[in-house]
Amino acid sequence: MSASPAEIVLHVCTTCRPAGGPDAKEDRPGSILLRALDDALAARAAAGAPLPVRLAPVECLSVCKRPCTVAATAPDRWTYVWGDLDPATHVEEILEGVAKYAASADGIVPWRERPQIFKKGVVARIPPFPLPTADAAE
Amino acid sequence: MSASPAEIVLHVCTTCRPAGGPDAKEDRPGSILLRALDDALAARAAAGAPLPVRLAPVECLSVCKRPCTVAATAPDRWTYVWGDLDPATHVEEILEGVAKYAASADGIVPWRERPQIFKKGVVARIPPFPLPTADAAE
Repeated sequence: MSASPAEIVLHVCTTCRPAGGPDAKEDRPGSILLRALDDALAARAAAGAPLPVRLAPVECLSVCKRPCTVAATAPDRWTYVWGDLDPATHVEEILEGVAKYAASADGIVPWRERPQIFKKGVVARIPPFPLPTADAAE
Repeated sequence: MSASPAEIVLHVCTTCRPAGGPDAKEDRPGSILLRALDDALAARAAAGAPLPVRLAPVECLSVCKRPCTVAATAPDRWTYVWGDLDPATHVEEILEGVAKYAASADGIVPWRERPQIFKKGVVARIPPFPLPTADAAE
């Protein structure tokens, strides 16, 4: 069973900040990125081209040395974590990359089709979540 | 619903190698780590103290600059990715850390209880997998 696009979640670390960056949570680049992605998704929906992505703020993805950081995940797909993202310049490129992730069968987008920020900024990927074992399903 | 320990999966990147490391897959540190973990788990089971962990070899976790790499995951738990692991010296410490992950409720082990290699080597963490939406469950 492959995931429907509507099930894709984009975790956004809201506490991400560079060394010496702002302490107040709402001023941190991670929080700014979350708001910018939310605005951009709303703009796409208003323009009749919604993306099948649900934003999920999260406090710390443990990629603290490479702010800002997001993670895309969905049932039956590889989870990808990307860092080194700039809320001022990367929002549209992030959404383009996530749209390709959404359009893929298993979360793996061919290398040459990936946005540059996802090529350079990949932090990790994790295989699709294992199906429950027979015992666990009982 | 929290996961039963038996459902924990430890992904082990079998292609991990340092720059200039061996090319043959079976000689790569990632493959050596997989075999060493398998032996150590078998030894624990034979001694009557099995760990509730299933090893899952994977070709590339995209943490290529920090070999060796593993990822622990289970239903309803945070997924953790750890790198900078040495198959010659870290096997028992990895299993101790994974045992604590298995014993935790949600995958989060208190900082001071984590093995040093997991403190220094954390690459990323991802929130527990979102439950299916009402639509997806239909």
